[in-house]
Amino acid sequence: MPTVYITAPTAAADELAETLVEDRLAACVNRLSTTSTYRWDGEIQRDEEAVLLAKTTAEVYDDLVTRVREEHPYDVPCIERFDEDDVFEPFAEWRAESVANR
Amino acid sequence: MPTVYITAPTAAADELAETLVEDRLAACVNRLSTTSTYRWDGEIQRDEEAVLLAKTTAEVYDDLVTRVREEHPYDVPCIERFDEDDVFEPFAEWRAESVANR
Amino acid sequence: MPTVYITAPTAAADELAETLVEDRLAACVNRLSTTSTYRWDGEIQRDEEAVLLAKTTAEVYDDLVTRVREEHPYDVPCIERFDEDDVFEPFAEWRAESVANR
Repeated sequence: MPTVYITAPTAAADELAETLVEDRLAACVNRLSTTSTYRWDGEIQRDEEAVLLAKTTAEVYDDLVTRVREEHPYDVPCIERFDEDDVFEPFAEWRAESVANR
Repeated sequence: MPTVYITAPTAAADELAETLVEDRLAACVNRLSTTSTYRWDGEIQRDEEAVLLAKTTAEVYDDLVTRVREEHPYDVPCIERFDEDDVFEPFAEWRAESVANR
Repeated sequence: MPTVYITAPTAAADELAETLVEDRLAACVNRLSTTSTYRWDGEIQRDEEAVLLAKTTAEVYDDLVTRVREEHPYDVPCIERFDEDDVFEPFAEWRAESVANR
């Protein structure tokens, strides 16, 4: 099952997490605080951001990416998929049920 | 080698991390603070929790899952396995030794 | 594309992140605060550290590991590679460009 790694500005992160759960595109979203270092226009930048780890299913992954692109304030957001090699079975079932009833 | 992603209530997280290291089911556990958004009984909930990233080996993975289920306060805990595609060799050896002497 | 998971002492983490971006070994590094529990010399230890998640490419991965080993204050640092199963295409392109002009 995919965990989707998304970074977002702190101010937009809670609403994005809520949208994904409300629209049943993720069963659960873990939000963590991060300091991001990157290069932009040739300069090293450092920003406070949030990392969102969205727990979803293969079936709705494409719809989740589409929704994140619609809602995200950046033109080029970080959206990455990491497939789990194993998931505790009852938790996997809860995840599948949480996104299934759309 | 597997990294195991576990979420737990803040109050239970440190003890769980310590148990896994003490019982040589993980060489090391990284604990991060998270805000979790999820649906429960039809309502969107938001809770402060901890993410535990347990560094272990394929050999003891099943025993680690069994122990987490025994110690975890939730009936349906989030327990997910992510296999690394590469590990710095001396760190991999330290991990293997740390869980081997059981 | 690889995300590289590195742990480092809090005091060394920002400089390490900046070095990786400055030397075009990573397009972006997310730094998160963590409490690490591990066994050292038979005793359970608990330390405040940082987790660095470096977004890079397969081409420069080996050079990134070499640089982390040179700069890292530990003899046996945690350096782990997790390959993404999918990346939002424009973000993947930005990553590739950010590390390519070396």
